[in-house]
Amino acid sequence: MNPHPPSCFATPTLDSLPADLRERILAVQSKAGFVPNVFLVLARRPDEFRAFFAYHDALMEKDNGLSKAEREMIVVATSAVNSCQYCVVAHGAILRIRAKQPLLADQIAINYRKADISPRQRAMLDFALKVARDAAAIEESDYAALRAHGFSDDDAWDIVAIASFFAMSNRLANGLGIRPNAEFYGLGRG
Amino acid sequence: MNPHPPSCFATPTLDSLPADLRERILAVQSKAGFVPNVFLVLARRPDEFRAFFAYHDALMEKDNGLSKAEREMIVVATSAVNSCQYCVVAHGAILRIRAKQPLLADQIAINYRKADISPRQRAMLDFALKVARDAAAIEESDYAALRAHGFSDDDAWDIVAIASFFAMSNRLANGLGIRPNAEFYGLGRG
Amino acid sequence: MNPHPPSCFATPTLDSLPADLRERILAVQSKAGFVPNVFLVLARRPDEFRAFFAYHDALMEKDNGLSKAEREMIVVATSAVNSCQYCVVAHGAILRIRAKQPLLADQIAINYRKADISPRQRAMLDFALKVARDAAAIEESDYAALRAHGFSDDDAWDIVAIASFFAMSNRLANGLGIRPNAEFYGLGRG
Amino acid sequence: MNPHPPSCFATPTLDSLPADLRERILAVQSKAGFVPNVFLVLARRPDEFRAFFAYHDALMEKDNGLSKAEREMIVVATSAVNSCQYCVVAHGAILRIRAKQPLLADQIAINYRKADISPRQRAMLDFALKVARDAAAIEESDYAALRAHGFSDDDAWDIVAIASFFAMSNRLANGLGIRPNAEFYGLGRG
Amino acid sequence: MNPHPPSCFATPTLDSLPADLRERILAVQSKAGFVPNVFLVLARRPDEFRAFFAYHDALMEKDNGLSKAEREMIVVATSAVNSCQYCVVAHGAILRIRAKQPLLADQIAINYRKADISPRQRAMLDFALKVARDAAAIEESDYAALRAHGFSDDDAWDIVAIASFFAMSNRLANGLGIRPNAEFYGLGRG
Amino acid sequence: MNPHPPSCFATPTLDSLPADLRERILAVQSKAGFVPNVFLVLARRPDEFRAFFAYHDALMEKDNGLSKAEREMIVVATSAVNSCQYCVVAHGAILRIRAKQPLLADQIAINYRKADISPRQRAMLDFALKVARDAAAIEESDYAALRAHGFSDDDAWDIVAIASFFAMSNRLANGLGIRPNAEFYGLGRG
Repeated sequence: MNPHPPSCFATPTLDSLPADLRERILAVQSKAGFVPNVFLVLARRPDEFRAFFAYHDALMEKDNGLSKAEREMIVVATSAVNSCQYCVVAHGAILRIRAKQPLLADQIAINYRKADISPRQRAMLDFALKVARDAAAIEESDYAALRAHGFSDDDAWDIVAIASFFAMSNRLANGLGIRPNAEFYGLGRG
Repeated sequence: MNPHPPSCFATPTLDSLPADLRERILAVQSKAGFVPNVFLVLARRPDEFRAFFAYHDALMEKDNGLSKAEREMIVVATSAVNSCQYCVVAHGAILRIRAKQPLLADQIAINYRKADISPRQRAMLDFALKVARDAAAIEESDYAALRAHGFSDDDAWDIVAIASFFAMSNRLANGLGIRPNAEFYGLGRG
Repeated sequence: MNPHPPSCFATPTLDSLPADLRERILAVQSKAGFVPNVFLVLARRPDEFRAFFAYHDALMEKDNGLSKAEREMIVVATSAVNSCQYCVVAHGAILRIRAKQPLLADQIAINYRKADISPRQRAMLDFALKVARDAAAIEESDYAALRAHGFSDDDAWDIVAIASFFAMSNRLANGLGIRPNAEFYGLGRG
Repeated sequence: MNPHPPSCFATPTLDSLPADLRERILAVQSKAGFVPNVFLVLARRPDEFRAFFAYHDALMEKDNGLSKAEREMIVVATSAVNSCQYCVVAHGAILRIRAKQPLLADQIAINYRKADISPRQRAMLDFALKVARDAAAIEESDYAALRAHGFSDDDAWDIVAIASFFAMSNRLANGLGIRPNAEFYGLGRG
Repeated sequence: MNPHPPSCFATPTLDSLPADLRERILAVQSKAGFVPNVFLVLARRPDEFRAFFAYHDALMEKDNGLSKAEREMIVVATSAVNSCQYCVVAHGAILRIRAKQPLLADQIAINYRKADISPRQRAMLDFALKVARDAAAIEESDYAALRAHGFSDDDAWDIVAIASFFAMSNRLANGLGIRPNAEFYGLGRG
Repeated sequence: MNPHPPSCFATPTLDSLPADLRERILAVQSKAGFVPNVFLVLARRPDEFRAFFAYHDALMEKDNGLSKAEREMIVVATSAVNSCQYCVVAHGAILRIRAKQPLLADQIAINYRKADISPRQRAMLDFALKVARDAAAIEESDYAALRAHGFSDDDAWDIVAIASFFAMSNRLANGLGIRPNAEFYGLGRG
């Protein structure tokens, strides 16, 4: 039993939820062995829950262009810049699992410049962090830097969109006080 | 005819879009008299388009708790902090129309502390801007400040969620280079 | 009748002013149709009023080298960085009128990098914003970037001087609480 | 003979100047024993020279309300924040002389919070530095803090105006590359 | 075998070191099972090595006043602010072991405000982070906040000294490119 | 007699100190003519005192590679960025003496970019200030910039180590409230 509530808002009971939310939550639980708190917290608002996870899945559950591990690198790097405990801990675990590298998530979260990544991945994270921190200054030269590493237009879109989506997620998690489940911390540490 | 493309990505033709997107776009055009560029640009990715506007409508098309005009105030204030030309210009127009005040959007965009708003709205924007700029530092005392002005838990959630959603939108618009339609600048100026 | 006082200081009556101030104010009113608040507020201190407007006119009422519209672009761009409601609103109106472009002032105020300006004007604003934000870091390479776009030494001086003068004006307007006249918002919108 | 030019602009010869500028410069030289470089540099533009020094004298050559030494404290504190070598060195010398305290200028330039000043002067500098750094956030509570220390409305105006004027001067000196005369460094060190 | 060198400087061989350094290094290896890279890297400069570890031990190997775990909390919190991979990873491991809490180090590294710590420890970290980020603004009121939580003068000294020492260590590790040993990441995860 | 205590902590009496500290302090007094306050303040903690000065001397009392004056330039430049009154005043005096240039310390403290130093020294200070402000971003290209000016690996180490050591010293002095002795201000002014 977790003595800490998932957020600073009241958490709805599973019974009270629309069927599609309940099913999604039970499916996640069955796969992961626990229900990540973000599902319980966002369920307070079914329409927002549906849009959030539809958007999330459209961006993260793809493996063409950027790999799934690379998508998680963007999440961890940008969420660390925003000091988002939920996203760094939860997506750090997913990154460890997807990249099959137990050290990578911590390296990227603390200082991605010193992480064990390729120059191409470094360029991807440079761009993603500029979106996270100072998107108003993104210019054609930033796109050119991506193309020089072989990124396509759709890859560039993905980087912008993932960094943008987690700009939202980080603020939701920090603003609503969503607490990472204890299970995430140790996952994928090998 | 607009000589400027809507973004730095290729814009799909209406014909090439799934029916639901085309219908949404035509409905907007019929209501507004033009198609706001964000619709044309995001249509490149139908799943993201659907999730984006579903999320947007869930947050912005409500009038209980925060008024629609107050929701737009949050958008304009946070988008200005992120120097997002598209969102300030487009939602500035919507704010002028919804608030029936031709000066308010420009006042909020430049310096919301000097805008003609109530102390309660000032507290709402203080909270929203903390979410936009430094959500990791949001604490119970920030929520207490909202409650002192009579905001409910659901109002607080709305402020967090709107500021977070536009943290995403601002980065999408800046990162993808979405240009505001010329029509927006003059709307609602009375 | 404007229900809002022009600033947080008591405003002197026209009758109480020295003749030269009164004449300047009446001349402005006769030309513009209203008295911009900065005239009424600064009149509390006649010597400062005289020096302020003498300096202003020496920098802004010239059309050799930089055009008058370009001078106003510098004002709008740097005043936006300083969140100066008075200067962005008032000089935004003047820029719309002088450039005969109704969209330019809002574009520059929100994000000058995405405004419809020439590369030469972009270089001018890059330099001006460095003066506004971090003048201590101005170096020979910044001057070289101006020369590469054909700016003369006197043009460079003008950019420094205008950005510097409005560093003062922005702080005066923000510090003294000078409110933009309602008339400015709609001027030059075509 | 000084081997360093006064700025990165060509310096006009005394002969070439309008009579009123030449007289002002000679008067300063006769009083100080040398010509501070700001006079030589700004003389390139006679109208700006006249306005600059008229404004300067209107703010700094008064001893009612704020003392002349207190006015110089504002200059040194705000110029240090702007890393303005000319203004910190030149006005540091004037402050040492006017306050008859050889340590005060260096203390204020490095960290005014630890300088040997009164709580009233501390409040004055807190306000002045807010004008220098973030004037858009000045609010009624900042004025109230001044009044609590007995400052009048005219004192508050003086603080705003001096901090604003040197926001301009610092950017002029840094932007034009004005070099402090060697004579200033040792003046008033007792 | 570690394929990554411990830093961007050549690492001295154990044989080439003065006896006292060699003994210290062998003692650490015997206790920890590996040689933390900071020992190998700093050994290039024996006098600096001796002073560094003498200082370190004087601050960290004490359990009166602040507990050893609390001292490590200060290290992790301030090192995270400085994005120091070596110190966050290595001292995160030590904190997990000393506090016997596998989640605490990651919580503090990402956002100490949301970590499972006492209000007294929160006050300790607030003070420590002010030392790390803006020590020039430390004032009597910061000390008073510590005293209100029962911290003694010597506790306050310890907080200042530990935050200061790791301001140095973080810059050494980042500047010299010291890489955390792989062994640290998984230690104390329970 | 100095009416100001050396810090906000109680100062131990000379008699109460271990013999080696007392001897070091008396030796400094005999050489300098006064006891710099940092010695009196740190003596409260003999082990920290010994480590601090051992480290200091290992870095600062060398003249191979970087000259002693260049080492002091690094101290003054980085301490100014940290607004450390003690270190800027005390090491400013030492720099004036070691460089035999009465203006240099003030120039570097206010804006090192405009100081009378060589391009090689400018590169040294650029690197040192990056260590002071943003060491996590130091990369191979920063080292390459040093090598292009002829700096060796050991010189680079010295720059990192001195900037890091004074990152600590500045925080100790600011955090403990160490006051510069009045004697320092005028030393070496020629």
